[in-house]
Amino acid sequence: MTAKIYAVGVGPGDPELLTRKAARIIRSAAVICAPTGAADAASYALSIVEDLIDPSRQEVLPQVFPMRKDQEGLEAFWDEAAAQVAARVRAGRDVAFITIGDPFLYSTFLYLYRIFQERYPDIPVEIVPGISSINAAAAAAGVPLGMAAERIAILPTTYEDDELRRTFADFDTVILMKVNRVFDRIYALLKELGLERKGVFVRRVGSADEEVIFDLERLVGEKLDYLSLLIVKK
Amino acid sequence: MTAKIYAVGVGPGDPELLTRKAARIIRSAAVICAPTGAADAASYALSIVEDLIDPSRQEVLPQVFPMRKDQEGLEAFWDEAAAQVAARVRAGRDVAFITIGDPFLYSTFLYLYRIFQERYPDIPVEIVPGISSINAAAAAAGVPLGMAAERIAILPTTYEDDELRRTFADFDTVILMKVNRVFDRIYALLKELGLERKGVFVRRVGSADEEVIFDLERLVGEKLDYLSLLIVKK
Repeated sequence: MTAKIYAVGVGPGDPELLTRKAARIIRSAAVICAPTGAADAASYALSIVEDLIDPSRQEVLPQVFPMRKDQEGLEAFWDEAAAQVAARVRAGRDVAFITIGDPFLYSTFLYLYRIFQERYPDIPVEIVPGISSINAAAAAAGVPLGMAAERIAILPTTYEDDELRRTFADFDTVILMKVNRVFDRIYALLKELGLERKGVFVRRVGSADEEVIFDLERLVGEKLDYLSLLIVKK
Repeated sequence: MTAKIYAVGVGPGDPELLTRKAARIIRSAAVICAPTGAADAASYALSIVEDLIDPSRQEVLPQVFPMRKDQEGLEAFWDEAAAQVAARVRAGRDVAFITIGDPFLYSTFLYLYRIFQERYPDIPVEIVPGISSINAAAAAAGVPLGMAAERIAILPTTYEDDELRRTFADFDTVILMKVNRVFDRIYALLKELGLERKGVFVRRVGSADEEVIFDLERLVGEKLDYLSLLIVKK
C-alpha cells in the first residue's frame, strides 16, 4: 500500500462526534499532524482526539499556522508544513492531518490541499468528512437547517449590508460563520428586516463551553468567541 | 432518566461514516425506528446500521413514509408514525429514529420533528448530527465546498432559470440536491453560463455504487438516481 495523507475531520469538539472512520485512521496513522494558531498554543483538534493517540508508536507533529487577517507571509508557513508532510509520506508513513469540523468546509487543511494539488500531485490525499459546526449547531439549537424546498446560504464572513439584504430575501436559512467581529452590525440589520427573533447564536458547539442563545439582543456590545456562528431561519 | 427520542443521522451510506455517538445510541436504544419509502421496500438507513442492532433485545420498527410529489394524504402516515413513537417513549423506552445523512438537512425526520414540537412538547428530542451527503460528496470528488471568503448556496430543488442565474452569480459554490429529474435543463443553463466544466455529479455517495462524474455532458438524457447531487464550483 502506498502511504497517503488523510485529511481527517474530527468534528466540532465532542470526541463522540468523530466518525468511526476518523477514529480508525487516527489510531493507525504513523504521523498525526495537528494545526495550531501559535507556537505556544494547544491544538484544539488534537485535544479532541488525544485519547486515540499512542505517542510511543505515533509521531505527533504540531504545525503552526498563524491566524491573522493579513495573509502576507503565511505562504511560508504553509510551504514548510507541506514539505514536512510530504517528506513523511514519501518515507512510506501515513499522515493524518486533523482538522476541526469538516476538511472541505472552511478548514485549515484547504490551504495545504491546494499546495499538494499544485506541487505534490503524486502524493495521494484522502478526505475523511467530519461533522461540521453548522450541523452540530443546528442540532444543539433544535433549529432545522432546511426541509422540503427550503434554500440555505452559508456566508463565511460578513458582506455589505445590501448583499446581506438580498441573501436574506432569497434564502430561507442563512448561516453566518465567524460573526463575532461584526455582530452588532448584523443585529442592526436583522432588526431592520424584522428577523431579530429568527436567529440563534451558537458558540463553541460540542465543547464544555457550548452555549445556545436565542435572545440575540443580549449579545450586542459583547466580546464574542471566534468559534461561533449565527443561524437565521425565516 | 426520562426516555427520549434520538434523531440519529447515520451518514450517507458507508457504515464507517457513522459517528461514535450514533453507534452508541443505536446499540443501546430499546427501539429503532427505520423509515422506508414503501411497505415492501427495505430501509436504506437500516441497511447502514444493521450490524449494530441486536433484534433479540431491540425492537426494530419500520415506518412507511411514501415518497411522492403530491404531499396530500401523507400527514396521516406521519401522524401514525408519531403516535407509535410517542407510545414507546411514554412507556419509558428510548427510541432511535435513524435517518440517512444529517437529521436537520432535508431529512425524513423533519416532518416528525414538527409534529413532536406541536403535539408532544413533553417528549424530549435529541438530535445527533450525521455526515451529510453534501460533505461526503465533496470529499469523494476532491472538490472543496468553500474556503476563506467563499459563499455557499444549497438548493434542495431546482428553481426557475432566472433565480438560478442569480444564485450562480452571487455564490462561489452551488449545491443542487435531487437534480435527477431536471438535469438536462440545468446542464443547458450551465452551458449558457460557461460553467459546464465547473460541476461534478455525485451519485450514491458512500455506497458500493458511488460514482463521481466530472464529464456532465455524458449524463444528458440519462435516467439519473434519486440519491445524487451536483456541486458547481466557480
